[in-house]
Amino acid sequence: MSEAFRLGIAGLGTVGAGVVRLLTEHAALIETRAGRPIEVVAVSARERTKDRGIDLSSYHWCNDPVELAHLDGIDAVAEVIGGSDGPALDLARESLGHGRSLVTANKAMIAQHGLDLAQRAEANSAGLLFEAAVCAGTPILQTLREGMVGNRIDRIEGILNGTSNYILSAMERQGEDFGEVLAEAQRLGYAEADPALDVDGGDAAHKLAILAALAFGVEPRFCEVEIEGIRDIRAADIMQAERLGYSVRLVAMADMERQGDSPARLLQRVRPCLLPAHHPLASIDGPTNAVLAHGDYAGPILIQGAGAGSESTASAIVSDVVALARGETRPAFAVPATSLAGVKCADSGEREARYYLRFVVADRPGVLAELAAAMRDARVSIQSLIQEGESVGPEESGIMIALVTHKAPARNVRDALARLQGAASIVEPPLAMPILMD
Amino acid sequence: MSEAFRLGIAGLGTVGAGVVRLLTEHAALIETRAGRPIEVVAVSARERTKDRGIDLSSYHWCNDPVELAHLDGIDAVAEVIGGSDGPALDLARESLGHGRSLVTANKAMIAQHGLDLAQRAEANSAGLLFEAAVCAGTPILQTLREGMVGNRIDRIEGILNGTSNYILSAMERQGEDFGEVLAEAQRLGYAEADPALDVDGGDAAHKLAILAALAFGVEPRFCEVEIEGIRDIRAADIMQAERLGYSVRLVAMADMERQGDSPARLLQRVRPCLLPAHHPLASIDGPTNAVLAHGDYAGPILIQGAGAGSESTASAIVSDVVALARGETRPAFAVPATSLAGVKCADSGEREARYYLRFVVADRPGVLAELAAAMRDARVSIQSLIQEGESVGPEESGIMIALVTHKAPARNVRDALARLQGAASIVEPPLAMPILMD
Repeated sequence: MSEAFRLGIAGLGTVGAGVVRLLTEHAALIETRAGRPIEVVAVSARERTKDRGIDLSSYHWCNDPVELAHLDGIDAVAEVIGGSDGPALDLARESLGHGRSLVTANKAMIAQHGLDLAQRAEANSAGLLFEAAVCAGTPILQTLREGMVGNRIDRIEGILNGTSNYILSAMERQGEDFGEVLAEAQRLGYAEADPALDVDGGDAAHKLAILAALAFGVEPRFCEVEIEGIRDIRAADIMQAERLGYSVRLVAMADMERQGDSPARLLQRVRPCLLPAHHPLASIDGPTNAVLAHGDYAGPILIQGAGAGSESTASAIVSDVVALARGETRPAFAVPATSLAGVKCADSGEREARYYLRFVVADRPGVLAELAAAMRDARVSIQSLIQEGESVGPEESGIMIALVTHKAPARNVRDALARLQGAASIVEPPLAMPILMD
Repeated sequence: MSEAFRLGIAGLGTVGAGVVRLLTEHAALIETRAGRPIEVVAVSARERTKDRGIDLSSYHWCNDPVELAHLDGIDAVAEVIGGSDGPALDLARESLGHGRSLVTANKAMIAQHGLDLAQRAEANSAGLLFEAAVCAGTPILQTLREGMVGNRIDRIEGILNGTSNYILSAMERQGEDFGEVLAEAQRLGYAEADPALDVDGGDAAHKLAILAALAFGVEPRFCEVEIEGIRDIRAADIMQAERLGYSVRLVAMADMERQGDSPARLLQRVRPCLLPAHHPLASIDGPTNAVLAHGDYAGPILIQGAGAGSESTASAIVSDVVALARGETRPAFAVPATSLAGVKCADSGEREARYYLRFVVADRPGVLAELAAAMRDARVSIQSLIQEGESVGPEESGIMIALVTHKAPARNVRDALARLQGAASIVEPPLAMPILMD
């Protein structure tokens, strides 16, 4: 039998404990598949004595996680502390700088410091793997990096945040507004006490920046993702969309524009969209995550599964650990960090789509003419108009008007909404959602 | 720059030519991702002079594909000749026996000779990879073998034959019977002139045997797959199922029964089933393939994409070639061939499900009583009965009776049908389809 592969784990929350449990429960299975045993030898966490339902007595304990970067007798470190900076980043830098491979579930850290960490890993012949950072145990990074290795990929679309998708699915099913469903999701443990990172799109944006870098061979650029969350969507919008034949989903999209074969301009967006029933992401329900990657040879490949959870995340971490145990060290973002292209941002204003627009307006004559004039002046033409009698908005002071536009550049739609800003007849900020795959 | 990885290709049909085209078109991309160039150095096919739209002048030509096993200066052979035996098998045995890695798209050969080939590969330290054999460029084998490496998997379900799924989807959409839709599919190139391997389930069975071996760690046992095709399904069955809220799909299913942690009994079936709308495979339309693998940590993972086509297949072959070029040689079926368990067949008769049963009977008194008596005697209880006025069958000599049973063991359902065999009132053999995921 080959020598054991020795792992240090930093962070023993539900994910860290899940990794220990998985490696223990499936030790024999994993040994047969990896060709050698995988052993946890050291751990670090904030509280040593907390009961986590696992036996830590045989592991070396480190009070400071960064010790794991230097401790003798460790082949790799699994970082599940979390946070884009602080101890997680210190540990990652120290480990990789010291030539010690790192497996991490930390999407915020990879989205924001991925390039620097990949460079450190390569400079010191260490592996840097982060399958768990995107869609937990649903192996999308590996699918892009290995299964689709022969493909040029120019477009990725995904449902990357389970909490938002759970909320939108529940709003659709129950006809309830965002606030009510969020409260329920928090009670059921599908949403955090502070849901901002999930429902405002930041979490999906972290994952999108990682996917885009890996699929397109460009530097990860989290700061350039255009982000819009789901707080402003009403149950009435979802019902309206449904009547028109669409589902509302928070979609993360990345598009690569090329000049010849070289990456030129990158567009990354996270925003609520209307999806027709035949769109592969339209049927993704509840907390499930899914990614659709368009390969020029393989065609569209969809992969879906749990996008969170300690067991699913542990599954991804272990798959990375096994790859390291087999001696497979590849560039973190599929190509050497020096080969990652630094690309410009594409102008989202140029992108054309049909749009769903919804206004809450004062119920008085002339309001519709005002809306229509703004649309005309911005060169957005209206395809169909739905006026809802329903009173909505602050103190039910307004009525809802929804419309679907003909295909128009995003810039024109923004211009139309800007023209209406401050108009006395508009009771609350309008909502605009593009319709995908028309 | 590292040394080139040199490939020989046996077979230059659409797939072989697709591999050459892909490696040429994306040479730079692949070199960056693989860390070294991949070069085709030798080819073999039946006709040397045929115009394939690719330039073969710089490749060494072999009249006999088996020469590629021994020709100097080749790192691996890609076999895309096809056929479970004959030259493909000769080449595979010779190559692996000679320590030369083999990549193949040949599902029939791997399903039937996979164990022998895996043993040869391991005995001679050669790689044996066959991602293209299951669902073409949709990387399901890699997902099982690597992405889900930390999981125990006890169940796999898939839509593994694009032709059958195309036909069933078209029957559903167009309300036409099997024969009409098959003829159309043949005209459009979605079905072969001899469609038997596709519509009778053999092709899906080959793929299922490979998936089961890899996911469960058992010897591939194609000969033990229970197979039923789609020829006997009528448009009226699909309409009836639709009214009840189900889609009809040809589903390949493998279940592992364990004793403790060890594989004990394996059930492999390919058969038409009724799927409720919320089943992840129910919405798989047209020639698309999909596999749902249930991991005990990762949860259910679905992967879907094209299941055939020269470009998609070339994508899979190239992903295997890149893995070899990176020096990643792993056991063919995820664990060493000596670790693959030889398991018994599970008894499908024990499996319980609700069933859709359809009879074509003579239109005369007492027929229904006869059916009901057979069901009662076999201990199958009827949940709902649908009698259709429509005349069907040979010379429209019968009328259709469809029913849904309560949950019953397959054995009892078979017994009920056996009791009716030869009954004068039964105009043609009955159709039985289980309802999945109730």
